[in-house]
Amino acid sequence: MSFATPVRDMRFSLEHMAGFGALEKTGAFADLSDDLVAAILGEMAKYCDNVVAPLNEPSDRDPARLENGVVRTPKGFREAYRQYVEGGWNALAFPEEWGGQGLPQTLAIALVDALNQACMSFAIGTTLTTGAVKALLHAGTDEQKRLYLPKMVSGEWTGTMNLTEPQAGSDLSALRTKAEPAGDGRYKIAGQKIFITYGEHDMTDNIVHLVLARLPDAPEGTAGISMFLVPKIHVNEDGSLGARNDVQCLKLEEKMGLHGSPTCVMAYGEKGECYGTLLGEEHRGLKNMFVMMNAARLDVGVQGVGVAERAFQRALAYALERRQGRPPGVKAGEMIPIYEHADVRRMLYSMKSLVEASRAICYANAVAYDLARRAPDEKKRKEAKALEDLLTPISKGWSTDRANEVASLGVQIHGGMGYIEETGAAQHMRDVRIAAIYEGTNGIQAMDLVGRKLQMDGGTAAKAFIRKVKEEAVIARAGKRPELKRIGARLEEAANALEASTDWLLEASKKDQHDALAAATPYLKQFGNVAGGYYLARGAMAAALMLGEEGADKAYLEGRIAVARFFAENYLTEAAGLTQAIAAGAESVARLDPEALTG
Amino acid sequence: MSFATPVRDMRFSLEHMAGFGALEKTGAFADLSDDLVAAILGEMAKYCDNVVAPLNEPSDRDPARLENGVVRTPKGFREAYRQYVEGGWNALAFPEEWGGQGLPQTLAIALVDALNQACMSFAIGTTLTTGAVKALLHAGTDEQKRLYLPKMVSGEWTGTMNLTEPQAGSDLSALRTKAEPAGDGRYKIAGQKIFITYGEHDMTDNIVHLVLARLPDAPEGTAGISMFLVPKIHVNEDGSLGARNDVQCLKLEEKMGLHGSPTCVMAYGEKGECYGTLLGEEHRGLKNMFVMMNAARLDVGVQGVGVAERAFQRALAYALERRQGRPPGVKAGEMIPIYEHADVRRMLYSMKSLVEASRAICYANAVAYDLARRAPDEKKRKEAKALEDLLTPISKGWSTDRANEVASLGVQIHGGMGYIEETGAAQHMRDVRIAAIYEGTNGIQAMDLVGRKLQMDGGTAAKAFIRKVKEEAVIARAGKRPELKRIGARLEEAANALEASTDWLLEASKKDQHDALAAATPYLKQFGNVAGGYYLARGAMAAALMLGEEGADKAYLEGRIAVARFFAENYLTEAAGLTQAIAAGAESVARLDPEALTG
Repeated sequence: MSFATPVRDMRFSLEHMAGFGALEKTGAFADLSDDLVAAILGEMAKYCDNVVAPLNEPSDRDPARLENGVVRTPKGFREAYRQYVEGGWNALAFPEEWGGQGLPQTLAIALVDALNQACMSFAIGTTLTTGAVKALLHAGTDEQKRLYLPKMVSGEWTGTMNLTEPQAGSDLSALRTKAEPAGDGRYKIAGQKIFITYGEHDMTDNIVHLVLARLPDAPEGTAGISMFLVPKIHVNEDGSLGARNDVQCLKLEEKMGLHGSPTCVMAYGEKGECYGTLLGEEHRGLKNMFVMMNAARLDVGVQGVGVAERAFQRALAYALERRQGRPPGVKAGEMIPIYEHADVRRMLYSMKSLVEASRAICYANAVAYDLARRAPDEKKRKEAKALEDLLTPISKGWSTDRANEVASLGVQIHGGMGYIEETGAAQHMRDVRIAAIYEGTNGIQAMDLVGRKLQMDGGTAAKAFIRKVKEEAVIARAGKRPELKRIGARLEEAANALEASTDWLLEASKKDQHDALAAATPYLKQFGNVAGGYYLARGAMAAALMLGEEGADKAYLEGRIAVARFFAENYLTEAAGLTQAIAAGAESVARLDPEALTG
Repeated sequence: MSFATPVRDMRFSLEHMAGFGALEKTGAFADLSDDLVAAILGEMAKYCDNVVAPLNEPSDRDPARLENGVVRTPKGFREAYRQYVEGGWNALAFPEEWGGQGLPQTLAIALVDALNQACMSFAIGTTLTTGAVKALLHAGTDEQKRLYLPKMVSGEWTGTMNLTEPQAGSDLSALRTKAEPAGDGRYKIAGQKIFITYGEHDMTDNIVHLVLARLPDAPEGTAGISMFLVPKIHVNEDGSLGARNDVQCLKLEEKMGLHGSPTCVMAYGEKGECYGTLLGEEHRGLKNMFVMMNAARLDVGVQGVGVAERAFQRALAYALERRQGRPPGVKAGEMIPIYEHADVRRMLYSMKSLVEASRAICYANAVAYDLARRAPDEKKRKEAKALEDLLTPISKGWSTDRANEVASLGVQIHGGMGYIEETGAAQHMRDVRIAAIYEGTNGIQAMDLVGRKLQMDGGTAAKAFIRKVKEEAVIARAGKRPELKRIGARLEEAANALEASTDWLLEASKKDQHDALAAATPYLKQFGNVAGGYYLARGAMAAALMLGEEGADKAYLEGRIAVARFFAENYLTEAAGLTQAIAAGAESVARLDPEALTG
């Protein structure tokens, strides 16, 4: 299937929904302009469409393999990765002093979107490296930065995150990997880690593992976890590669999807000779991990957007080509493309509106991330940080839940052909399924939203967001076009419903956390719906204005209004019911004797 | 994972939700009683748990294979099938004159449930045979019945349905397979069919294909399609097997799931020597096909129920065993089973309530099927037929859509392990995905509901159903227990919302079909939610009554109330939003220039 990075959509989302203009206005990024963004996205599309996208289907059938301790990535990955490094893509949003290009992280997020559209199993490796770079920038010593950052910013060496052990998944307090001072300033690491993405591969000369482990006499639980930098190959003082470290890949997992990406069981110190250095302070490893975790969660949300985009493009192409049936009431004559059937369009518009809504949420989250660090005045930075914190679990949780729906609709549109692997639609569904699970399951995102994000500031950030949504709804309702009026009306109802849930949750959680935890998942869904509807409404209003301009891209701009309207009628309308479900509280999920569930 | 057919749930569903007692009262089935049902379900469970269930995971890894035109089913399938035939399972609900046991179809539906829980890829073959038997019983000549029925009722020979061709899927009017009179009362068949489940296999001596084809000079479109009975091996006058017919399996499809089930590309008459006999009247093949199609659609709905049940059992077992985290506010001490976390229970209760709701809908549909044929007075038969027709698209569409959700939640509960194939959770998701597609996609079910089923009788059946729901809601609201009051309140709101949609659709479709077709999918969802909530409410009220009896199974009965309540709070509350989405009508899915959807 022909695939094209949707540069026009990505630009529209950045400029007219996610508020990218605010970054240009900060002056913090030299020469940043819409034209520069257009140029970068254009180059990105060339690379992704021509080099990465063709890897997607073959790498599903010819997965990464472990042979004598060496992981062979699928055919074409090495060469595509070489071009990724040479094109400077890894360095896009990192500081110039380490070889980066100093552009906003928002553009790096657009890159994550494009790469995941092209091939998620290839793209996933790159986001682990950029995550590791962020941890090093945040917590590395000068020496660690000098030795590792240049190669990792360029992407010549990749990075990994090593958290999970069989008994320690969502709950890292049970982590057992050990680190002992070796006497020379280094630490001896010993333990096994599972689910390590790109823990071993053949694309680069070195791999830099960030490993969570416990020092001797560390406190129990999460307060006793430290982070270590453990290279696959030791790095000499002059930056050249030294001896091999005692780090091995024992096994690759056989997964439902993402076959191109090696998911490794990693052994550290099987021979007692694994050495690493402490990254950050002792026992503060989890705090450091969370610095990159927030960014990583946004990355995963965008993975959902990317795969959903490709699933949509495939389904649209099929719907325009496949002919079955006739218009209502017509019995004879030629069959029409299934796109002409209202129910097929319903599925396509569902997919498209969910892709656009989740993309806009993630891009807005990225803009907030950049503003939180680079806005000139402190008040703006604080506001942006609060928005970034609020949106992160929604970007991750809502976007990936919706991406699973989108990929499944993509299969559905193909009918029986969707179930046949050679069509390619099923792969998207299998690939994207993991995104709702890793980097904190979506349940954990929901608990982060109602626990940490909502309650920490007494609901200030959430309420500020809801206020903005309501203002937007009023403006939309005052619009001339009937579609805008409808969008505004649905948005206002949904914002009111979200406000009611928010008030209820804040009140209920004053007593204890049970109601909040019980209602977390529907609350995240409701918040995501409202946020998605809000950004789409902004886009629709911008489109309505632009339609009056000379040379306007009429069909495209009308599309933005229609898609926002579809979302409003079909997803914003879920909000009131969700408020009822939320208010049912802890009682509705009260613990039952498992016998009650056993037939 | 240990698995057990949930006999207690199945009996509760039959007796206290689906109204099985009405069948006993007809007197049409000799000796039918709750005790007999219990005995049959008990035997069913023994066979399914011990013989079929162990095949499920191995057959996913070791799929059906085509070798030199012969299909080898996975290890164990032949033996399990032999026991299926010997146990008389295939014959359960067929007439005694053909070797059947003359029991209600409802019990055959319970068997479909149990078999699909145990192993969907094994079970699917059996429902095609029973479907073919129904077509033969309905349309076969005395000679066809004499030669084929005894072996097919017993299951010694299996049956297939051959509809789809590459250009003719949802729209069979484009069908090209040809049938020409051979001069001896038989017909020469020529054409290729795709997606033929168990089109070829090694479990029986013969396979009886029902093939749709066109006679010479047949009218165009669906009015020119006839049905033919085409055996793999010709059957002699005395019933013995003769020469091989010119029927071949050319290829097996590589599918997302259901690897154990051979999905065949079938060639009829490649050598010009394929012979069959006409089944039913000329050009009336589609009408005959629809006789078994209704039953087949219910079977597919029940496939969804079955796979969802097993996904639920697996997830519950994992949640009780896997330890992560601590109760809210507790920082130290042992980790608790994840079942103790409210958000995990939310997922489990979602799964369980969807399984119970969809099972009850399908069982009630089956009871209506039996009553429509066997109730003593005509009025009852007519009413039952109207309910059967109404519920069929809901059984198929709603149950399988929800089964996909359930299977996905099952993966989610397993966290990262859910994505690893060896855990088994992912298989359920891959297996059940097809159920929303075949036997008429769920979009087609929705159009059947709003087009044929709702409008044909001016909404009489739908309104009668809604009336019953409202009556039940009033009774529940009058209940003493607060849970029943809540169930009643939510059920009443949802029934009102469904009534509003129904009125709106009936009114809108007086002008044209566009609004009805556009709103079909949300209308089916809404109807399924209300029907599910209704049957669960009946179960909850029965449970509340039974709790007062001596020796009551307290934990279990409380569970029925809690599950119904959870469903009411979380799914019945979707109804009002769906009414809004439905009323947005055709305009919200108006045709857009594809350019508007191209980024």
